[in-house]
Amino acid sequence: MMDTGGKENADTDASRCLNGSFSQPHSEQEVVEEEEEAAMSSLEDCFRHLAQEARELYLSPEVPRLSHPPTPLEFYRDYVTPNRPVIIENAFNDFPALAKWSIPYFRERLQHKILTVAVTPNGYADAVCGDHFVLPEEREMTFSSFLDIMEGNSEQKGVYYVQKQNSNLTLDLKELVEDIREDIPWASEAFGHKPDAVNFWMGGREAVTSMHKDHYENLYCVIQGAKKFILHPPTDRPFIPYGSYSQAAYKEVDGEFQIVPDPEGHTVPWIAIDPLNPDLNRYPKYGEVDQIRCTVHPGEMLYLPSLWFHHVSQEDQTVAVNYWYDMEYDIKYNYFSALEKMVNCKSTIGKR
Amino acid sequence: MMDTGGKENADTDASRCLNGSFSQPHSEQEVVEEEEEAAMSSLEDCFRHLAQEARELYLSPEVPRLSHPPTPLEFYRDYVTPNRPVIIENAFNDFPALAKWSIPYFRERLQHKILTVAVTPNGYADAVCGDHFVLPEEREMTFSSFLDIMEGNSEQKGVYYVQKQNSNLTLDLKELVEDIREDIPWASEAFGHKPDAVNFWMGGREAVTSMHKDHYENLYCVIQGAKKFILHPPTDRPFIPYGSYSQAAYKEVDGEFQIVPDPEGHTVPWIAIDPLNPDLNRYPKYGEVDQIRCTVHPGEMLYLPSLWFHHVSQEDQTVAVNYWYDMEYDIKYNYFSALEKMVNCKSTIGKR
Repeated sequence: MMDTGGKENADTDASRCLNGSFSQPHSEQEVVEEEEEAAMSSLEDCFRHLAQEARELYLSPEVPRLSHPPTPLEFYRDYVTPNRPVIIENAFNDFPALAKWSIPYFRERLQHKILTVAVTPNGYADAVCGDHFVLPEEREMTFSSFLDIMEGNSEQKGVYYVQKQNSNLTLDLKELVEDIREDIPWASEAFGHKPDAVNFWMGGREAVTSMHKDHYENLYCVIQGAKKFILHPPTDRPFIPYGSYSQAAYKEVDGEFQIVPDPEGHTVPWIAIDPLNPDLNRYPKYGEVDQIRCTVHPGEMLYLPSLWFHHVSQEDQTVAVNYWYDMEYDIKYNYFSALEKMVNCKSTIGKR
Repeated sequence: MMDTGGKENADTDASRCLNGSFSQPHSEQEVVEEEEEAAMSSLEDCFRHLAQEARELYLSPEVPRLSHPPTPLEFYRDYVTPNRPVIIENAFNDFPALAKWSIPYFRERLQHKILTVAVTPNGYADAVCGDHFVLPEEREMTFSSFLDIMEGNSEQKGVYYVQKQNSNLTLDLKELVEDIREDIPWASEAFGHKPDAVNFWMGGREAVTSMHKDHYENLYCVIQGAKKFILHPPTDRPFIPYGSYSQAAYKEVDGEFQIVPDPEGHTVPWIAIDPLNPDLNRYPKYGEVDQIRCTVHPGEMLYLPSLWFHHVSQEDQTVAVNYWYDMEYDIKYNYFSALEKMVNCKSTIGKR
């Protein structure tokens, strides 16, 4: 009687056993683990259903292509509303930039212009390195010096990339605006407003943008070279691992790059995998969702929907212009924001 | 030693206590309940966040009104994409029905026409009654007999409602098509296709449509009387209780209505609450979300977005026409379908 008394107290009262609440001879510890596991695995199943059904219902393994720009209504209905990427050909044939932009042209027109350039030892700006999230060193230099580096006529170490996303084209490089357009008319009509920013990108094959998402509708126009995208829809969020990293920045000192921790000790949540070489032993769930890959060539425009995860690399020297249109904070955002909360609550449960 | 021995076995081995896994003196049963409760309450919090944020970001307590029809693009961008209802005035001023439709007109033009009429003792067709989901008795009668009942010139018992949703207007009442239009042109242009069905509704103040949702984009045009809607957005799904009911149908036998169980024993999942009189003791969660109510008057059109929950009643004798356009099975459907799975998985965990 004394032997079992303690155990009975620790379990439940007899009435619960009699009415069949616990018909299986489980230890309580097993029950804890099974309940928790069941709760988590059923939520996992829901996440899996979400990601799979997205691919079955409205996404395709390849990014679809249009040979001509859609009407504003077609664009909104067939791509923006379902949050579906598309490559659009012949969308900016009227940009003089397609024929004019070249290193000699930039040198002639903009040689003394001051550019902000992201400098890293390895091409990875705004990316995870060990326990750090490392910003590039932002260096100001003349367009002419930057072009020297692009042409290999400079002893500079590291990778140089013009990637400032503050509408640098319309603010800092006004001289180039006449070679493009300040907006994409059919897109502005579709969205009901002009773009919030127009950015100029220029860099070599080593420059990489680590995987992330933007709160913008993005129209990405390649002028020269080629941009390679690795994409995941927002519904893949539960399979994309995030970590928490100490913010830092590269700084070249006496010809050597150092990682300088943020003096205020900020931490940054960032995606923990490199989609070019994902560590599936550490993050096995990432292996459950397929990457969607595409390459965008000169004269082609990628519509990259808001909240899509994207990793960008480039072939050869690449020049591109992108238009950021404000996204709508509507039902799609609302569902995504709840999904993020669910993923976070699930990992909290999992860690207890 | 013997006193505690049993309990230690039932708990865990000492090493787990030493390394701090269990620092709180909990019984295992308490731990089971707390883990399960935490998992559920955090998912509950996510559901609450979803429903609240919808109201903060893009919904309003009142259904907004437009004084004139939007352009196809405005309609798609501002209402269909965000899944937001709107009442549109002056949207079908060109329908001769607005001036012509009346009991004498119907009697003159359609007196011998055979109608399918839903007959119930209480006005509740397709609704929960006790443990049953009860279909109406579907009765065929001449339009003339139906009009006699509407006018109170008949001894018939029960509530009669023309509510057949098989495109009864274009299929069964072709004579009336010239008084309306077979589609709403700006809506057809927006959706990129014609409606899948056009339905004719006619009934008195007792006829009620119980709360449900449709897999259609719905344009509801009131010709006479008034339709009263109680609405919930799809993001309220976790707060709307469903039950499982045995299917049955009303049948009038010797002047008395009986509930006849479905001979094949089908069960139907249906919404368990009556939003006019919700049982908040039994379903307290329904009290956490606000109803959105609106009344649609003659000459007004309600755009009721796909997957919105709606309960419909009417003032006086009401005649209406609605257009069902196929919905897109895109990201909004995809998220909703995952939400339904999560709600179901949560209630499974809760019941174990």
